[in-house]
Order: sequence, then C-alpha cells, then structure tokens
Amino acid sequence: MAVIARLAGVSTPTVSRVLNGRSGVASETRRQVEALLQEHGYRRPNVAVPAASVEVVFFGLESHLGISILRGVERVVRQRDLVVGFTDVSMPGSKSRTWADQLLARRPVGVIAAHSYFTPQDHALLSASGIPMVALDPAGIPPEAVPSVGAANWSGGVAAARHLLLLGHRRIAVIGGPVNSLAARARLEACRAAMDAAGVPLEGRLVRNGEFFFEEGLALGRDLLGLADRPTAVVCGNDLQALGVYEAARLARLSIPDDLSVIGFDDLDCSHWCGPPLTTVRQPFDEMGAAAAALVLAFVDGEVPSQTRVELPTTLMVRGSTAPPRDR
Amino acid sequence: MAVIARLAGVSTPTVSRVLNGRSGVASETRRQVEALLQEHGYRRPNVAVPAASVEVVFFGLESHLGISILRGVERVVRQRDLVVGFTDVSMPGSKSRTWADQLLARRPVGVIAAHSYFTPQDHALLSASGIPMVALDPAGIPPEAVPSVGAANWSGGVAAARHLLLLGHRRIAVIGGPVNSLAARARLEACRAAMDAAGVPLEGRLVRNGEFFFEEGLALGRDLLGLADRPTAVVCGNDLQALGVYEAARLARLSIPDDLSVIGFDDLDCSHWCGPPLTTVRQPFDEMGAAAAALVLAFVDGEVPSQTRVELPTTLMVRGSTAPPRDR
Repeated sequence: MAVIARLAGVSTPTVSRVLNGRSGVASETRRQVEALLQEHGYRRPNVAVPAASVEVVFFGLESHLGISILRGVERVVRQRDLVVGFTDVSMPGSKSRTWADQLLARRPVGVIAAHSYFTPQDHALLSASGIPMVALDPAGIPPEAVPSVGAANWSGGVAAARHLLLLGHRRIAVIGGPVNSLAARARLEACRAAMDAAGVPLEGRLVRNGEFFFEEGLALGRDLLGLADRPTAVVCGNDLQALGVYEAARLARLSIPDDLSVIGFDDLDCSHWCGPPLTTVRQPFDEMGAAAAALVLAFVDGEVPSQTRVELPTTLMVRGSTAPPRDR
Repeated sequence: MAVIARLAGVSTPTVSRVLNGRSGVASETRRQVEALLQEHGYRRPNVAVPAASVEVVFFGLESHLGISILRGVERVVRQRDLVVGFTDVSMPGSKSRTWADQLLARRPVGVIAAHSYFTPQDHALLSASGIPMVALDPAGIPPEAVPSVGAANWSGGVAAARHLLLLGHRRIAVIGGPVNSLAARARLEACRAAMDAAGVPLEGRLVRNGEFFFEEGLALGRDLLGLADRPTAVVCGNDLQALGVYEAARLARLSIPDDLSVIGFDDLDCSHWCGPPLTTVRQPFDEMGAAAAALVLAFVDGEVPSQTRVELPTTLMVRGSTAPPRDR
C-alpha cells in the first residue's frame, strides 16, 4: 500500500479506502489508484466483512412483477450500501430446512415479503428472529401485526368499471381473482359497486373467478364469449387473465376492441406489447418496492413509523383494448 | 437461553443454534424453541455477521430475462447460504460513485454480469478488487479474460431458418439485433448460412438491423410488410422484436401465420401469451444462471475451472406463429 500511495502521490489511508471501496476519495484519484494496483498485479484477498442485505422474498407466480419491485427496493437500499437480496420460495428447498430457516441463516437486516403465502409458522419464526419484515401487496390475508405496502385495488376497480360505463357498455363481465385473495375481492366488489351506482347492476351470469393465470383467463373468456347474450366488455383480475381473454377472442374470431372491450390490472410490460395494447389499471410496483424498503429500513433504524400500512394509488391506463360497444 | 433450554428440554447450544439459524437441529425441536422464544418475548438483536453475496448485475433492457436468470443463480447459490444480490446499473447512480464503486463497497464474494455494457474501466476496477466475475450472455464483446456463459446463438439461428425453409418459405426476412452485438450477428449470419446451404440466398432487401426493442420490431416490420414483394416470413433478433412484428401485421390486417410466419429468439414468458403463441428459439436462462453461479463459485473456492466459456444449447419451440406460406 505504501508503494502504491507513493506512486499515486496520495496517503496510505487513501489507498486503503480505495481498496475497501469506501467513499471519501475523488473519482480521479480512485481510478488512478486502481490502475496502479492493477499494474502492479495486486489482487486483494476478499476478507472484508460483507455488507448486510435486505432480502426480497417472492413466490413464483408473482415474479412477472419482480423486476419492477426489485428496482424500487434497490433505489432506496443502495444508498446505504446494503445488498438487495432475491429469494424465490416457490423453488424446491432442501428437505431439512424451510425457506425461512435458510433466510434466517443469511442474517439479513430486513425482509420484504413480496408474496402472500406466509404460514403462521413462518411468521412466528421471522418474528422471533428480531429481523424486521414488511409485506408487499399481500394478495391474501397478511398475518396480523405485519406492516405492509399495497395499492388502491378498490379505486382501481371503480375506475375500470366507470370507464366501460362511460363508453356505453351495459353487458359487462367481471373475472375476479382467487376467492381467498382480499385484493382480488376488492377489485371485483368495486366493479359491482360502481355498476350499481350507475344503475347497471352486474349480472350474476357474467361473474367468474379464477387464479391469476393466462390459462384461467383463456378458459373463463371462452366460457363468457360462448354465452347466448355475450358480454361486450370484460374486466379482468389481472393482466395475465386479460391476455387469456385476448386469446379466447382471437379463437372466437372476435376483434378487440370492436367486438369486445378488455381491461386488465397491473400494467405488466407485456400489456404494451399485445395487439391492441391493453387498457389496464396500473399498480406502481416500483414505488411500492421503494415504499416497502423505506418502511423496513425505518424499523432497522429502530424508528417506530407513524404508519405501518402504506397504500399507493392505482391509475387507469387507457389504451387500445376499450371502445364503445358495437350494438350500443 | 438457559431458561428456554430448560423449558424445551434441550441443551443451551441447541437454543443458540436455533437463534443463529444454523443447521443441525431437528425441525420439530427448532419449532418448539422458536415458539418458546416468542412466547417469552425474546427479540434477538441482529448483530451476527451477515452472509456474503453473489451479486447479479443487470442493465435495464435485459431485465425481462432477469427473474429466470436470478432463479437459476439462486438454485446454486442458496446451497451455500449466500445471498443472491440484485443490481440494475441502468438506474441513475450517485454523482460521486459509479455502480462498480458501489458494488465493491458491498463486498460480494462473486459477481455475475448479466449485461454487456462494461467499460474497460469497470473491468479494471473489478479485476483489481480480486472479486471473481463471470459474464452471462454478453451481447457485445466481453472484455478479454472474463469467463463467460452464453447460449448457442448460431445453431439457434440455423434451426429458425431451416424450420421456415422446410415449411416452404422462400421470401424470408431477417431482423438482426444491434450491429455491435456479437450474439445478434451470430443469429443473423446463421440464418444467411442455412439459407445459402438450401439454395435460397437471403435477399439484401429483406435484411434489417435494430435494437432489441418492441418499437424497433414494429417499425422494421411495417417497413418490410410495405414492400412490393413482401416477405412471407420474418426471423427476429429476439422476442420483443417479434411482438413488434405482430403489431405491424395486425395494423396491416395481415394474419399470423396465414399471411406471415414469425419467429422470435429468447422464449420470454410473454411469447406464450401472444396471439398466436410465438414460435421461438429458447435460450435456457435459468440454466445459464445456474452455470454462471457454478463457475463464479469455483473461482471463489480458488479452483481453476478447466473451461472458462460455457455455452448452453438453444431449442426451437414450434408454436402457432409459423405455417406454410399461402402463395407457395
């Protein structure tokens, strides 16, 4: 280090700072020192204490939203020189240790659970560990006392139904999500309420429920489009279901939006890329990730946040998949 | 700890093992100890040394493949109780520190660079740090001496072109990727070679180059479909371009595959969800992530791997977007 310091015309502590990746060194100096280190064949043994992490826990099917959430988390967490950790707990684990055991063994300073498949056992384990945890958009019922970040599902559902009503639709079908998902329930019931308020009650024969998958949207869409008096519009529980309804329409040789209007929920990247681009209710996954990270870091700092439930707004993104009904 | 140990009927070291998330404790015992800890209101101060990480570095646009890659990395890395770290270097960083500076400050034991925007400076910095690095599917020219994992782009391109030739296509267009991407060049030149070998030379007027975006596929697709003697099939540089060509066909009121066959490259999730499902060349991103993780961990262990370039096979996935040409 002394040799490099002399060659670079800097102090030994400065070289040490560069070696340890610490701040407080001008970029130009850092570059010069790194160049000299490389020139002299210095390879630093990697023995420094690793940075702690905030781990984001996913469960397989939510992963289409994963990168947006991770980006939002990173935006907040990188300022602390912490690692943003990724775990997908839908992958088969080892026989002797659960994902929660493995997570604890990695000693994160905080955990963001971007899925809703917690068992009370998982929760007890994490809780006893003293590691702060925040739930992000739990589609099910989050365990009590878990701080959480979500989006305004209800107002998103209202916006979707009102958009179709304003376009003149009357035979509107609604595909809800899994029955045990509170978020999905909120979306469906919001459509029903908005339609009631407009004097256009949702017909029971036009309501379906299914998992948040493409395949479910396809099956339920075929079912709805096969009805004698088929709907002129479908509000879906999420974007994947909406893409399934697109495929059902294509197979039935119906054109979107001329023969059928379709609305999704989420605003996945692929909702821009389908033909026509999908009208959908945007959830701000990036901002939700950032909010969850800020909340978990507050707990890490020993703060007691005034709010332990953060709900971010949803936005109706009107694109090409909605239009007035033909038979208006 | 002694109190809990007595209540649980286990030794104090066993309680300590549970507290520190270490193995060697039966699941049932672990659960019992955790329950007692919780019951007695024990909250463990999180002072243990955090686990080290293997960081996966993305650059924005590659992120549609991100989750698959992360899953593959996790499969290998979780066995060591290491954290899988996520970084997207396309996000605006701080003014004083580059992403590489910040990465080094987190002290990962290994780095997987799932993007190809390394500057020689970045490479020098990481190299001097002594932290092993593996490049994953570098679309550009990876810096020399960087071990890397990729997919068989050439044979994927050959498979795509042969599939169309066998269906009877003669006017085949090829949309290549960015001109500075070696992977994209391999795909394009492989199509050309396969067509030459079949006695159906690729016409210069049917070759285009563009970035790996939906919008480029749309623009280049509209261009190709506007030609007097338009192609009956298009091989695209990746799936996003192919989805852009879908939209170009829809706007031109051409039906896929009746009027136009389309082939992509990557096999993103959304290639299953477009109408019709896309015929594409699958890159095994999950396996590529696992291979990169295994390679970087070998370096961490001080091994000298016999191979520092791993190339995994690609597979043509035939779905609904390809059919014999109408004007055969």
